[in-house]
Amino acid sequence: MENTQFRLAARPVGLPKDSDWQITKEPVRELADGEVLVKTLYLSLDPAMRGWMNDAKSYIRPVGIGEVMRAGGLGEVVASRSPRFAVGDRIGGGFGVQQYWIGAADDRHAGLHKVDTRLAPATTWLNTLGMPGMTAYFGLLEVGQPKAGETVVVSGAAGAVGQTVGQVAKQLGCRVVGIAGGQEKCDFVVKELGFDACIDYKGGDVRAGLKEHCPNGVDVYFDNVGGDILDIVLTRINLKARIVICGAISQYNNTTAVKGPANYLSLLVNRARMEGMVVFDYADRYHVAVAALGKWLQEGKIKSREDVVQGIEKFPEALTMLFEGKNFGKLVLQIA
Amino acid sequence: MENTQFRLAARPVGLPKDSDWQITKEPVRELADGEVLVKTLYLSLDPAMRGWMNDAKSYIRPVGIGEVMRAGGLGEVVASRSPRFAVGDRIGGGFGVQQYWIGAADDRHAGLHKVDTRLAPATTWLNTLGMPGMTAYFGLLEVGQPKAGETVVVSGAAGAVGQTVGQVAKQLGCRVVGIAGGQEKCDFVVKELGFDACIDYKGGDVRAGLKEHCPNGVDVYFDNVGGDILDIVLTRINLKARIVICGAISQYNNTTAVKGPANYLSLLVNRARMEGMVVFDYADRYHVAVAALGKWLQEGKIKSREDVVQGIEKFPEALTMLFEGKNFGKLVLQIA
Repeated sequence: MENTQFRLAARPVGLPKDSDWQITKEPVRELADGEVLVKTLYLSLDPAMRGWMNDAKSYIRPVGIGEVMRAGGLGEVVASRSPRFAVGDRIGGGFGVQQYWIGAADDRHAGLHKVDTRLAPATTWLNTLGMPGMTAYFGLLEVGQPKAGETVVVSGAAGAVGQTVGQVAKQLGCRVVGIAGGQEKCDFVVKELGFDACIDYKGGDVRAGLKEHCPNGVDVYFDNVGGDILDIVLTRINLKARIVICGAISQYNNTTAVKGPANYLSLLVNRARMEGMVVFDYADRYHVAVAALGKWLQEGKIKSREDVVQGIEKFPEALTMLFEGKNFGKLVLQIA
Repeated sequence: MENTQFRLAARPVGLPKDSDWQITKEPVRELADGEVLVKTLYLSLDPAMRGWMNDAKSYIRPVGIGEVMRAGGLGEVVASRSPRFAVGDRIGGGFGVQQYWIGAADDRHAGLHKVDTRLAPATTWLNTLGMPGMTAYFGLLEVGQPKAGETVVVSGAAGAVGQTVGQVAKQLGCRVVGIAGGQEKCDFVVKELGFDACIDYKGGDVRAGLKEHCPNGVDVYFDNVGGDILDIVLTRINLKARIVICGAISQYNNTTAVKGPANYLSLLVNRARMEGMVVFDYADRYHVAVAALGKWLQEGKIKSREDVVQGIEKFPEALTMLFEGKNFGKLVLQIA
């Protein structure tokens, strides 16, 4: 059995390019005692992956040159020498960009866990019930702390995290305004996901859009993009507003310095708060979020939208889609 | 009786210049019922005054063109038609840059209140027991939330707010590192005020200084200056650090855009928080801070250092000192 892998060949400058990857093929080795062999079915493609490719101190160590690229995924156990998992189990974990993963069933780093694909389709377990959903749920509730009647704005609204942020905020009784790139995404967010409004940052004026759609100002801003949009939202925040810094996708491929929010003194004027979050901090309470989100999904109150690209060979191209805003919903790479 | 006044003649571009002021002299009018006449003794000069001169939405309305420049001060009641204050009372309030203030004793806007100059000298009531002290106390305790053993860094350390921030943090059992301009200020902060260390941003490398003096990283950063120093401190913060945005004196006279903190994504990596504060929010608890700070002052545990400039005619020049870092401690203008 042959295992195709994407390894990091070089640290990218700007947007990752083909030569930053090395494709290797190696035979699948025998299992040792306590190990499992997982066949990757789907991989989660996330903006955060870009950060993992840099040699910089962060919340997680960088992927080493020559290492298989880190990625979360969903797979099927095809061989097991551990009592924890049986052949046929569907499990989630950090499988990396490769067709097969072998390792100890109790490898804390890989974080293997069974998922019940009768409750929700496999791709949902990489989206609303996976890392993006956890990020949205805890980032919004714990850091954003929205109250019913408040206005919540979320950028990257049609993306994996943004779609769940907005839908959860609606369930909490907030006015929800998304920011997304393009009319199609905006229509989806409003008509399919039930946001109150969506501002197309590519086709329109974000400043004017906020004025129109947030007549009472912004109480919570969940920021996935950074850059100019963060700066504009800062001019519209209310007293005691909370800004959740979840990401800054507009800045990840910068070859110059990150653009700092020039309007950050709006935090002073408005006694407002800007706070960063990393989903791993909430790992011991993921089950709480899965229960809440799972219930809303089953009741049809929220939706999980994935954009599935086929084939491991499409990995570099698919990753680029994220930074060019080409994905529509959570981007998933189907491996098998 | 003649009243000399400084009125705002034009909205300054960059550093305020002489032509931005109009000096008027008008006779002191008769008192109406309920009014008092206050002779200004001292005026508080604060970096925030620069913001009040701009025609921009902020936490307080801008000073109008032709209006007496807003300023807090300490004065003596020289005539009274109100039972609230008697001739001879020392009172604090928003008297403006003028020799005499006339108004209703219960004018909420002016916020008149008696001060006891037997407890502390008049200038201390404009510093540690006045607005800067209140800002330091509530900003540090409520927003910074330092715990014993943590490292607190404060910029503008020899300034009015900074000196009290550092001294209070020491009382709480924190390691305290100041940032100030010049060796003389640094020596004062360490030797007189008892900070653990002080980094001279004019004579040295702030990055190296933080590495040396904050071996365990930064837990609380109380920022009075903004700009490059904020950006450098962001690279040294700990997990769950708190950054208090009190001011950004380095940016107030910018004629180009404010420099946003390019390293703000350190908030994400460190799950840290940046929060603005405005002292007026704590007005109903000033007495708590006055009691605590007054006790420490009387016990000799903290000091109040003022830099007194003589004469109302020196107002424009003295205001400029603030932005050129020439004052040493709280800057006070002695009027009479």
